[in-house]
Amino acid sequence: MKLLRYGPAGQEKPGLVDKDGNVRDLSAHVKDIAGDAISPEGLKKLAAIDPASLPLVEADRYGPCVAGTGKFICIGLNYSDHAAETGAKVPPEPIIFMKATSAIVGPNDDVEIPRGSEKTDWEVELGVVIGKHAKYVSEVEALDYVAGYCLINDVSERAFQAERQGQWTKGKSCDTFGPTGPWLVTKDEVADPQNLKMWLDVNGHRYQDGSSATMVYGVKYLVSYLSQFMSLHPGDIISTGTPPGVGLGQKPNVFLKAGDVIALGIEGLGEQRQKVVQG
Amino acid sequence: MKLLRYGPAGQEKPGLVDKDGNVRDLSAHVKDIAGDAISPEGLKKLAAIDPASLPLVEADRYGPCVAGTGKFICIGLNYSDHAAETGAKVPPEPIIFMKATSAIVGPNDDVEIPRGSEKTDWEVELGVVIGKHAKYVSEVEALDYVAGYCLINDVSERAFQAERQGQWTKGKSCDTFGPTGPWLVTKDEVADPQNLKMWLDVNGHRYQDGSSATMVYGVKYLVSYLSQFMSLHPGDIISTGTPPGVGLGQKPNVFLKAGDVIALGIEGLGEQRQKVVQG
Repeated sequence: MKLLRYGPAGQEKPGLVDKDGNVRDLSAHVKDIAGDAISPEGLKKLAAIDPASLPLVEADRYGPCVAGTGKFICIGLNYSDHAAETGAKVPPEPIIFMKATSAIVGPNDDVEIPRGSEKTDWEVELGVVIGKHAKYVSEVEALDYVAGYCLINDVSERAFQAERQGQWTKGKSCDTFGPTGPWLVTKDEVADPQNLKMWLDVNGHRYQDGSSATMVYGVKYLVSYLSQFMSLHPGDIISTGTPPGVGLGQKPNVFLKAGDVIALGIEGLGEQRQKVVQG
Repeated sequence: MKLLRYGPAGQEKPGLVDKDGNVRDLSAHVKDIAGDAISPEGLKKLAAIDPASLPLVEADRYGPCVAGTGKFICIGLNYSDHAAETGAKVPPEPIIFMKATSAIVGPNDDVEIPRGSEKTDWEVELGVVIGKHAKYVSEVEALDYVAGYCLINDVSERAFQAERQGQWTKGKSCDTFGPTGPWLVTKDEVADPQNLKMWLDVNGHRYQDGSSATMVYGVKYLVSYLSQFMSLHPGDIISTGTPPGVGLGQKPNVFLKAGDVIALGIEGLGEQRQKVVQG
């Protein structure tokens, strides 16, 4: 299933995409794409619904594809080529940092350059959405706790991240820095999360053109690894790192400016398109 | 006012402490100590209630004193003496990192040593609770966005924090690593947040005995500073750093073990007491 949330910001309704690509409303069946609705049992119930029985709707705007996200956990330098382009080594175990959940926006909402920023950058990433409470889980059972996958733009301010006193969270958490969606694609529809093409364009120029095949620490490993440090809860998102081609990796560097248009996608997970505006 | 949440974990009800120290139920007036209830208008309404008119209750357990916390933002090395004891310099601007909100527990709940941990440590901290959406606010107006203050134990795993690949969040986010409360003390009852005695004992031995007077970046500055990087929302908590006396600062180091009892307090903000258990 391709689950989504549509409508004005803060008033999104749950929906799904049918086989013809139309959006249908799920409000009669679930309150939101969140919590129990994305548990293994919840997803089984949704899968049993005939999409043709659901009301067709016009979706003017997509919201973030999952609600109730308590943690937005990111993995740093998780593609060997990206580590190289930023001048860093592949870490011997995953680097994790948090992105503020208040940074989450819809997939096509504007991306806002924060005041004082000169180095706002992009990162196409594969997002993993947790469907079930996970704590001390093994790699073998890790996918039992995953509801599905989504597309994320891990927007980053490089000066805030690296030149303003350690701890990357400062450059990762600005408002609008987490476009998420359009869809939560349930895991049964993603044959191999470690073999998905992913790309990102700015103003029509392709900067990122990679594949999750070159991810260093894969999805199963990451879910298991993170669950050794903290409980993962339904709706939590793990953003698994970006392939090469970020603005910081260009010679000379290229950063976002008001008026730019970012377009990105991951095979099977849909596309995003953001206009860049000044905050 | 001293606002609180009482009852079993996950089913807490809102309450307040009356002038005799009794807990009274606020359920008839607010759904929770969260969101609009802690806005300037919400707090004004609560202040207009005669506590004597509220039902007296037995509070067997206190929950975290605020709900709906979207961000648990911590400030690193924000006391000059604490920076010195950990061998670090006072940073030229605040170091910020995130603690997972899933780490938040009640003030007297057990603190769990995560599996594989050998360096679980304590940190008494002054917590600032946001009451109103803050973005790009000045230092002069910063307190308009603060609902009040609370006591926090910023429990930390030093090896996870510093020896397991950068980014402190890994050692700060474990389940039960954020005891919060007992009370959200509204700002009108805290004459000067920069002059509060704070202390922490382990098994009756006083390890931390400081004052918020030695905080490097004060509450007003921090609220303004953070709001330049991200929106702060009602219920967000800023934990403002710890004075000297953490386990990592002892020679030789002292870390927590199952069976230990931590007791801590801040002048006017109440006390916490946690039993340490093995996770």
